[in-house]
Amino acid sequence: MSEKILDEISHRRFNPLTNSWLLVSPHRTKRPWQGQQEAAVANKLPDYDPKCYLCPGNPRAAGDTNPKYENTFAFVNDYSAVKEQQPEYEHHLIQLRQENDRPDLEASLLKAEGVKGVCYVLTFSPKHHLTLADMSAKETLPVIDHWTRIYANHLAASNPLKELVAKVSLSVSQDEAPTPKDEYRYMQIFENKGAAMGCSNPHPHCQVWTTSSMPEEPGKEMDAMAKYRKDHGGRHLLADYVKLELAKAERVVWENDTFVVICPWWAVWPFEVIIIPKRHVRCLLDFTDAERLHFAEAIQEVTRRYDNLFECSFPYSSGIHQAPLKGTQEEIDNSYLHMHFYPPLLRSATVRKFLVGYELMAEPQRDITPEQATVRLRNCGGELYRKSLS
Amino acid sequence: MSEKILDEISHRRFNPLTNSWLLVSPHRTKRPWQGQQEAAVANKLPDYDPKCYLCPGNPRAAGDTNPKYENTFAFVNDYSAVKEQQPEYEHHLIQLRQENDRPDLEASLLKAEGVKGVCYVLTFSPKHHLTLADMSAKETLPVIDHWTRIYANHLAASNPLKELVAKVSLSVSQDEAPTPKDEYRYMQIFENKGAAMGCSNPHPHCQVWTTSSMPEEPGKEMDAMAKYRKDHGGRHLLADYVKLELAKAERVVWENDTFVVICPWWAVWPFEVIIIPKRHVRCLLDFTDAERLHFAEAIQEVTRRYDNLFECSFPYSSGIHQAPLKGTQEEIDNSYLHMHFYPPLLRSATVRKFLVGYELMAEPQRDITPEQATVRLRNCGGELYRKSLS
Ligand SMILES: O=P(O)(O)O[C@H]1O[C@H](CO)[C@@H](O)[C@H](O)[C@H]1O
Ligand SMILES: O=P(O)(O)O[C@H]1O[C@H](CO)[C@@H](O)[C@H](O)[C@H]1O
Repeated sequence: MSEKILDEISHRRFNPLTNSWLLVSPHRTKRPWQGQQEAAVANKLPDYDPKCYLCPGNPRAAGDTNPKYENTFAFVNDYSAVKEQQPEYEHHLIQLRQENDRPDLEASLLKAEGVKGVCYVLTFSPKHHLTLADMSAKETLPVIDHWTRIYANHLAASNPLKELVAKVSLSVSQDEAPTPKDEYRYMQIFENKGAAMGCSNPHPHCQVWTTSSMPEEPGKEMDAMAKYRKDHGGRHLLADYVKLELAKAERVVWENDTFVVICPWWAVWPFEVIIIPKRHVRCLLDFTDAERLHFAEAIQEVTRRYDNLFECSFPYSSGIHQAPLKGTQEEIDNSYLHMHFYPPLLRSATVRKFLVGYELMAEPQRDITPEQATVRLRNCGGELYRKSLS
Repeated sequence: MSEKILDEISHRRFNPLTNSWLLVSPHRTKRPWQGQQEAAVANKLPDYDPKCYLCPGNPRAAGDTNPKYENTFAFVNDYSAVKEQQPEYEHHLIQLRQENDRPDLEASLLKAEGVKGVCYVLTFSPKHHLTLADMSAKETLPVIDHWTRIYANHLAASNPLKELVAKVSLSVSQDEAPTPKDEYRYMQIFENKGAAMGCSNPHPHCQVWTTSSMPEEPGKEMDAMAKYRKDHGGRHLLADYVKLELAKAERVVWENDTFVVICPWWAVWPFEVIIIPKRHVRCLLDFTDAERLHFAEAIQEVTRRYDNLFECSFPYSSGIHQAPLKGTQEEIDNSYLHMHFYPPLLRSATVRKFLVGYELMAEPQRDITPEQATVRLRNCGGELYRKSLS
């Protein structure tokens, strides 16, 4: 049924979402490892840390004090990568023309543009020691509601999705993110979990960066989705993909009524998964109340299985791609919400896959097939390993 | 003279080589760091390690024994990501048609192709404890000669560069890489240096992966270079870029008669540099004897400055992009050899820049400008810091 030969030979697979290839070397995990070992993370944190800048009631680096919040809490990052206010940037071609006889070269080889935006930090819980894997779907629901509210708050006035805002009932009762003055193009919700993924504070939180420009990755996906729809009589790339994967079954880790968790055909990270809704959903605002809970359930399944896999607090970066904050009706309707998880661990709690030399210079390369990863992740459902330890 | 405003505001810069953007947030290095610290690497290694599988005379993982080599030594990786022999891959559309009513979807959403090739490991020196930073340009020359020889050995029979082979006098006296049976499309020479960059053995070495397919990154560059040449009356993108940077001077770290070391306008990694020849050079075989020594000098300057910057053995991945092993005369002539260095450290020997959540999901983001990095790298030339310590 599956193409078994792909377990044996080196091959490339194509990622239709980003229009790029990766190299798969299934036999390669046999090599000996004398390199860096990650510290296995014990997760013996207290539920409150007086020095944490995300715990309720604590002072933050730049002087503000956190409220005594009960579920989630959002604030503008004290060290934002982008800001709402800054001088405009204009490339000074005329000035350059005097220094240099090639203003045309400047324009194509030294190209830049200003970017405005706002960067939020959003905590998942007041409890310092929790992770999404420890939280039930019901406990995670306020996070999804908060994402939805922040997204709604930042839609451009011209966005046709605006009319949905009034119809969605959200349980967020507090910590509303400030409404920005400007109109932004895209909102990237993402989580860096664990020191191995550059997370600088273990308190459960994600970030939400909103920018006046369309970033590279969602931009590539938007192009691919638009082209696919045009070439396939209006059908959605991810709708077709979900249908195909459900029929073939060999890369499906888990599903509920609304979502499928898949190790995608084109996965780069060893245990990469994607959460895709079965019906066409453009953005968080398209979800019903029941679907938001199903989303929380899917996230719970992924994060718990990750922790169970190597019996550790599994590091990853995750992110949601959805409709832009500002865009044409067509761009909005071409969008198909999904969530990526990119986890670095390969063989144990301490041995990761490094995407380095060849991967950076030539092409991403993976050592186990997505089909092998699927079997591993399918087999580690059940209770969170930590629960049975305590 | 420079566009000083870019030191103050968040902006995007365009990479004309890969046709993509990155986000620059110059004010962001001020944020506190409570995350992972890299182990500062002391480099107190012995000059011979009986357990190292790269030291002369030692047995390797798969059973072979290394010769007592004197300069460089190349062998086929015992755990190669690609191999010279494997079964052919054909996508079994007919079989699939019976399981699934959408063979057309398979073809566009589950695309794969077999990849053959050969992966070499190439040591830089018999001495276990050395790095390129410790080696003089003259000591590094055998490495460049060996790269040139391996490249020459793998050129497809149809490659017009073949006729250069006889003209180049190379000082490699030993350890010839075997000639492959097949014709390969591209050769990627790269080094992973340091545990932080996934290097599993500190013995100084690089890898050379040769594949039947054109990998993503050099493929993108080839396209961009071809388009630029077509749009600019036959001029080369990197030739124009070097001219421009030499005129502006603010991103030039170092130069000799043949090469410029630049923190490129579009650098993603904090102290990323690119080595570019001043004249049009398509591949290693185009270099004169003097130019190969100049290349060794440029690599020496980069690696020594890196080590001096934070007084540590500086981790990086580096790689050479050049003409394909197999290609049309036009593809060969459009190629312009250059060498990238992607080092992860940001603020000290122990604090790195993580390219994680936002970078993976949305767009690469950097915290200091390439102009600031240039000043730092310019100011740390001079003797290798370790030399004055001992
Ligand atoms: O081949 P090595 O040195 O064992 O392995 C290293 O380099 C390879 C090529 O960049 C990567 O695929 C591996 O993840 C990395 O650990
Ligand atoms: O914002 P943080 O958590 O301090 O920082 C982390 O996430 C950012 C967004 O992915 C990255 O740019 C940083 O390199 C990483 O350390």
